[in-house]
Amino acid sequence: MSQKTPDIKFFFNPKSIAVIGASPAPGKISNAILENLKRIGFPGVIYPVNPKYKSINDLRCYSSISEIPCDIDISVIAVPSTVVLETLKDAGKKVKGAIIVSGGFKEMGNNGKRLEEEIKETAEKNGIRIMGPNCLGIYDTVSKLDTFFIQGDRIKRPSNGGISIISQSGSFAATIMDELASEGIGVARIINYGNRIDVNESDCLEFLADDEATKVIALYIESVDDGRRFIDVASECTKRKPVVAVKVGKRDAGVHAAKSHTGAMTGRYEIYSAAFKKAGIIEVIGYEGLKDACRVLNVYKLSKGKKVLIVTDGGGIGVNIADACENTGLEVTGLSEEIKKRLASKLPSFCAVGNPIDLTGSVTDEDYLTALEEGLKNGFDIAIVTVLWGPPQLTEGFVDKLKGAMQRHNTPIIVCSPGGEFTKRMNRIFGEKGMPVFSTPESAVRAAAILTGSVTTF
Amino acid sequence: MSQKTPDIKFFFNPKSIAVIGASPAPGKISNAILENLKRIGFPGVIYPVNPKYKSINDLRCYSSISEIPCDIDISVIAVPSTVVLETLKDAGKKVKGAIIVSGGFKEMGNNGKRLEEEIKETAEKNGIRIMGPNCLGIYDTVSKLDTFFIQGDRIKRPSNGGISIISQSGSFAATIMDELASEGIGVARIINYGNRIDVNESDCLEFLADDEATKVIALYIESVDDGRRFIDVASECTKRKPVVAVKVGKRDAGVHAAKSHTGAMTGRYEIYSAAFKKAGIIEVIGYEGLKDACRVLNVYKLSKGKKVLIVTDGGGIGVNIADACENTGLEVTGLSEEIKKRLASKLPSFCAVGNPIDLTGSVTDEDYLTALEEGLKNGFDIAIVTVLWGPPQLTEGFVDKLKGAMQRHNTPIIVCSPGGEFTKRMNRIFGEKGMPVFSTPESAVRAAAILTGSVTTF
Repeated sequence: MSQKTPDIKFFFNPKSIAVIGASPAPGKISNAILENLKRIGFPGVIYPVNPKYKSINDLRCYSSISEIPCDIDISVIAVPSTVVLETLKDAGKKVKGAIIVSGGFKEMGNNGKRLEEEIKETAEKNGIRIMGPNCLGIYDTVSKLDTFFIQGDRIKRPSNGGISIISQSGSFAATIMDELASEGIGVARIINYGNRIDVNESDCLEFLADDEATKVIALYIESVDDGRRFIDVASECTKRKPVVAVKVGKRDAGVHAAKSHTGAMTGRYEIYSAAFKKAGIIEVIGYEGLKDACRVLNVYKLSKGKKVLIVTDGGGIGVNIADACENTGLEVTGLSEEIKKRLASKLPSFCAVGNPIDLTGSVTDEDYLTALEEGLKNGFDIAIVTVLWGPPQLTEGFVDKLKGAMQRHNTPIIVCSPGGEFTKRMNRIFGEKGMPVFSTPESAVRAAAILTGSVTTF
Repeated sequence: MSQKTPDIKFFFNPKSIAVIGASPAPGKISNAILENLKRIGFPGVIYPVNPKYKSINDLRCYSSISEIPCDIDISVIAVPSTVVLETLKDAGKKVKGAIIVSGGFKEMGNNGKRLEEEIKETAEKNGIRIMGPNCLGIYDTVSKLDTFFIQGDRIKRPSNGGISIISQSGSFAATIMDELASEGIGVARIINYGNRIDVNESDCLEFLADDEATKVIALYIESVDDGRRFIDVASECTKRKPVVAVKVGKRDAGVHAAKSHTGAMTGRYEIYSAAFKKAGIIEVIGYEGLKDACRVLNVYKLSKGKKVLIVTDGGGIGVNIADACENTGLEVTGLSEEIKKRLASKLPSFCAVGNPIDLTGSVTDEDYLTALEEGLKNGFDIAIVTVLWGPPQLTEGFVDKLKGAMQRHNTPIIVCSPGGEFTKRMNRIFGEKGMPVFSTPESAVRAAAILTGSVTTF
């Protein structure tokens, strides 16, 4: 068999995993992988492979892959770069795919590059699909797979949810994963493919497009392997679910940095930006944008229009939000005379009835609900609700009331709540109740822009 | 005396304060003011004024200002808008200045506007300087003054420090105050002047320029009262200390919103932007920028050049930072061959020696120190150090080691540390040790740009 396995689906539903270079020593990469597979509850068979040991963590340890009595879905290779080729040759046709977590390849210069080429050749000859090298591999809450060799006490694992992340960078994937976990946002699959000698962003996108567990895809790329295929696959994918992407390595310094990171030749940024647009991918400019995208798309579907209603209890923050909206092409359209009249009759006289609706520091819980109830009748696509907790009549019960409004209205409600300790505590409660909450005006507007598919400059 | 008191210095060093409309009822604005003056330890005399009471909180209560036996520095007026004029007439020439916290004036339309004009006239006739109406007034850790009528359990008060904030918006001032307090960042004076019938941004800037307690000024404006004077005063001020400003009410929606907020006619944004530039003010685009400015300028002085060294243990975040730097005009210049050689000899072989210096996930505490020690010899103006806590050899003691490096090097070191729970805990420790730490690549770069006086677009 000299052909590639036609698709990469088996990586996300393995029955058996061999961990090459397995070690019982805590702190070792291969040990962390064994521990993490155990912790997440991987339901298949695990084969540690290391000639030095007879057993590791109560599992029989094999001296080589060839010694294992049956075929294996995934081989996770965590041995020095110089030994990887040998390992792969030993595997022969016994494994479907290998995740090579070892570094020391193309990112290290010409010798590493040559090593990669030999690995690629051997893998192709034996029909083994390769993820990596120089990668963390897969964190998957659906098939309960975790090859990320980072310890769970420092980098938390998210629970099950609808977001999937494809990232060329391991640190980017791990960091955003940790942030999502700390906010209680769940994920389906996180994939880090590193130096990408075989499995690439298009393969992953193609798989996730069909994946029912995946509702939203966040993509971090330094470069794209095959531009034409990427656009084809992405265009199909965005018909079914939102895809948000950040492309890094945009200008000179970034380009050089990417090259010494995963050996990627990043190419001209403008071409990427145009390709994203063509494929229906929502582009964000960096980490903040990708994180905000995950938070808002975890809860809301993409919006058809760009009309934003702003409700606030602080005038200044309301003006700031209005500015930021216009800066991204969102439309802060006025209210009809009829709605204005109704709002004026239902709200206290000191409220400013316009867009923003400014409920001022004398706001009550009910004023917010009235503002949303009436304001949203004017055909808005998104509401940004600023909640500053200074006003004394605003009660902690407001979180539940706003949750009720969120369930009553079809329009996405984005909460903007900047502030210190008390606010951060309330924001955790918003989060626990499944309401996306943002701690600056700019991040709330970024989230709104993402929902409308707008490209933001901030 | 029909002339204004020549300056507003007395507002920031009052010997006596009358609280008009004082009430013993918890929850009332005037009660919160009395409580807050007590809490902060205002060292002067407090005169509650309200005909309904004989005493409030063990203080003798006066039926009117005229009944108070001596002259008063500040009268804080917290009565309904329709009664303010009468109160001011009663005060006659007995008070130097009044902080009118009551709302219900220009921001409410023509009737309110007329009321303001009458107040202005009376104040001018009696030589009373007015702050407000529709404002929170002053929070001052130097003279121990707190007229902010927001309860301290929801909006924390910062300790004493070098930042002063001038804000037309009360909610903006209160929110940023609360955030600074929660991060342990101290302030000198926070001023919110609201509808600004008299004391304006230029008066405040002029005072703060001379104020030894103020090292940095953050300015939130919707509009400027007298453009020419503002530029003159600000130009003098920026010679002595950094001034950072955000102008809101930039485009149509924001302009309308500002008008119904403090009644401000905001004018064309481009004129403001040009005025800031002329006066040497560093412009930021919104709340995020102003907050990041406070955090970084609390610790570091403005930088002369724009050359940034990036040190990271995560390649992807390093590339993201390099991109963002170039996006703001910061220069991510390369390292000399000599420094590269030295770094290569001192760092493990898997590190990427360039700019960024990528120490990878195998990083140790010492690798960071080596990278800074050698890298900074190449004449950089700022270092951005990304600390991702996944790498197992990075110890919690690294915070102290980096603090040591910060003290050894003259170059400002900005820490970028995005992540979840563990990271946030470490970030609090960075903060407690006085190191500015930022939780996204974009905010770290914003802070660096602010230090170089660059205008950021994000």
